[in-house]
Amino acid sequence: MKIDAVPTLNDIRSDEFIHKTVIVIDVLRATSWIVTAFANGAHTVIPTETVSQAIHLQKEGDLLAGERFCKKISGFDLGNSPVELLNENIHDKRIILTTTNGTRAIHKCQKAQTILCASFLNAKSCARVATDLQRDIILVCAGTGDRFSLEDSLCAGRLVKEFKTIANTDEKYIYNDFAIAMHAAYEQLKNSIEETLKQSEHGKRLIKLGFDEDVSFCTKLNRYDLVPYLTEDGLRLFSSKFTDHS
Amino acid sequence: MKIDAVPTLNDIRSDEFIHKTVIVIDVLRATSWIVTAFANGAHTVIPTETVSQAIHLQKEGDLLAGERFCKKISGFDLGNSPVELLNENIHDKRIILTTTNGTRAIHKCQKAQTILCASFLNAKSCARVATDLQRDIILVCAGTGDRFSLEDSLCAGRLVKEFKTIANTDEKYIYNDFAIAMHAAYEQLKNSIEETLKQSEHGKRLIKLGFDEDVSFCTKLNRYDLVPYLTEDGLRLFSSKFTDHS
Repeated sequence: MKIDAVPTLNDIRSDEFIHKTVIVIDVLRATSWIVTAFANGAHTVIPTETVSQAIHLQKEGDLLAGERFCKKISGFDLGNSPVELLNENIHDKRIILTTTNGTRAIHKCQKAQTILCASFLNAKSCARVATDLQRDIILVCAGTGDRFSLEDSLCAGRLVKEFKTIANTDEKYIYNDFAIAMHAAYEQLKNSIEETLKQSEHGKRLIKLGFDEDVSFCTKLNRYDLVPYLTEDGLRLFSSKFTDHS
Repeated sequence: MKIDAVPTLNDIRSDEFIHKTVIVIDVLRATSWIVTAFANGAHTVIPTETVSQAIHLQKEGDLLAGERFCKKISGFDLGNSPVELLNENIHDKRIILTTTNGTRAIHKCQKAQTILCASFLNAKSCARVATDLQRDIILVCAGTGDRFSLEDSLCAGRLVKEFKTIANTDEKYIYNDFAIAMHAAYEQLKNSIEETLKQSEHGKRLIKLGFDEDVSFCTKLNRYDLVPYLTEDGLRLFSSKFTDHS
């Protein structure tokens, strides 16, 4: 079984997703937000690429969430701060989410057999689900504006660590160059992930805008034992009644 | 001063090179070969993008060198194996070189104020020259076919280490996300660079083709104290009479 990691969406052709399990990573903050939303009782999260798509899809009872330039979209119910989400009542809600990088990344991976959402918050659960699916895996770092981002890549490195723990030997999987590199980087920085993310480009921008707590929260390792995956009706919580998105 | 590293040429717009010192890295094997050529007495190395450009530029006494699909180009005098080059008499020769990724990378950076060539073989010297130029620095990993490559990125990580040693404090430079990540990866893997490169995608391909010795040779750290830089007449050896490429 192969496990490939890619630094940004630019680094892969969508045809390469066919028959594979894709794990989308956008630590700051889309996939951390999505994981937190399900932990907080959301029923469905619908990722859209544009603000107008989000508004168009809204039905009675739905909530609108998202950011542009790291800030809540004017008129929307929610931004994309996971920490702010902890205090919201979103139980059983359908939420339509649009963000700059993360939701776009989910859309670009549509040709995959299965799409899972990962962050530090649910890395272990996500690796376990992906392993159980027994297909080749691609870890897609959403990046920031089509560029490498430290937080997503280090999370990919942590996922590689989780896969190695599950496999209990390095022989079981074949890793590509970027997976090997980011696993090494993660091992080197694993005791200072929060400080490192605060020094990352995206982390510094969020801190400047007052989202320090989000950066800290998004580094909380394996806080939640759940995996969002894409269905025809949007992102849902993975359960034993799991059905492929296809 | 800023030090940015980029995983591939796709990750940067050529306008971003203006007024900067660019360090091109193609460990397997273009920049390792270029460094070895100068160590072995070459006068000039002219990087070209295509085979026909190389043939067109050849004058009496010039040598043609290069590879396609990792193999010497038919009819050329030399391939791009640094180890094979050690036994060639290239003293005072002008050599025209075309390779799949490395020479293309040099061409794509033409808007830079200065272009230097780095590899593990000359990392320390290259970091010293780039520091002395006192401009923002971009470490450009040539990559393999527009994709991330472990060997170039780890070499970028080693260069960051050299810059940190020169600065003697981390305050002097501001590093971008990819530079931070690859410095961490390098620190984690520094005692097994040769083994790691032998497990990289490009390394495995070269070993399959019989170039094991090249992979080993290209990991020899700071073997040469020299820096090739681009002039209007091609790559030359940096000396105290250094003049900007502009």
